[in-house]
Amino acid sequence: MIGIDAESRTTHDDHLSVRLWLRMLACTNLVEGRVAGRLRDAFDTTLPRFDFLSQLERHPGGLRMTEISQRMMVTGGNITRIAEQLLNEGLISRSVARDDRRASIVRLTASGRRAFGEMARRHEGWIVETFAGLSEAERTQLFRLLAKLKRHLNAVESAE
Amino acid sequence: MIGIDAESRTTHDDHLSVRLWLRMLACTNLVEGRVAGRLRDAFDTTLPRFDFLSQLERHPGGLRMTEISQRMMVTGGNITRIAEQLLNEGLISRSVARDDRRASIVRLTASGRRAFGEMARRHEGWIVETFAGLSEAERTQLFRLLAKLKRHLNAVESAE
Repeated sequence: MIGIDAESRTTHDDHLSVRLWLRMLACTNLVEGRVAGRLRDAFDTTLPRFDFLSQLERHPGGLRMTEISQRMMVTGGNITRIAEQLLNEGLISRSVARDDRRASIVRLTASGRRAFGEMARRHEGWIVETFAGLSEAERTQLFRLLAKLKRHLNAVESAE
Repeated sequence: MIGIDAESRTTHDDHLSVRLWLRMLACTNLVEGRVAGRLRDAFDTTLPRFDFLSQLERHPGGLRMTEISQRMMVTGGNITRIAEQLLNEGLISRSVARDDRRASIVRLTASGRRAFGEMARRHEGWIVETFAGLSEAERTQLFRLLAKLKRHLNAVESAE
């Protein structure tokens, strides 16, 4: 019995982890798709453009393109093309980095800050709706479990 | 106090949901990046190619390209290009759909099934490692919370 139990436990665990991963991926895709649809309908914009602006909003001193690229949370956007569009629309400005004249720094313009502020306010409402199916206690629990997962992943990455 | 409490509660909730979403997105990105790196190192392949093959593995009778496209869990792959590559490598075959001669059906070849089986076995091991930072009880809890989130999202989507 011991041998069979150990084996069936392992199989069960493996299966649970794979199902867990597929479910996490499915949930992330559902939320991303929902937010992308809302951004398109309400602001005629995309998730990568929103993400790009939100990185700049968190860094009022501006960021280099390489830094934005590293900080982006969503994939699929061409960073250079997004920057050109946002420059043309007057939402961001570009200047030469003081310490490295080959690098350029982009930052939000006043108009970009206003536009992003409105998007972020609506975005927050959509996200609240999205997670409204969970109680506050369940959201806190999910937040903690994901934090633990993230710590484990960062620990194994740095150990490799 | 009631007014202030209600307001601070709302702000706290909103903030928690946005932080929860960003954490879920970050975790998904970390796991995806990890699995993509392992697939590249071990099999010189990509996550979209793995995803494409895994959809076919679940449907031995084959799938139309449009069905594969709808079922893909990861973004960023060009489905048509992936199919051409896998055909050239002999991992999938293509035939005309019986009920619609304009549509083609792709399915795994015997060689594709073997190759995918080996990848899936390794993939399962990586995923088990990935979630090993959580106890079995925590994994079950996370699985249930994500299931509840998914049900809520599907319910609000179908109500819209």
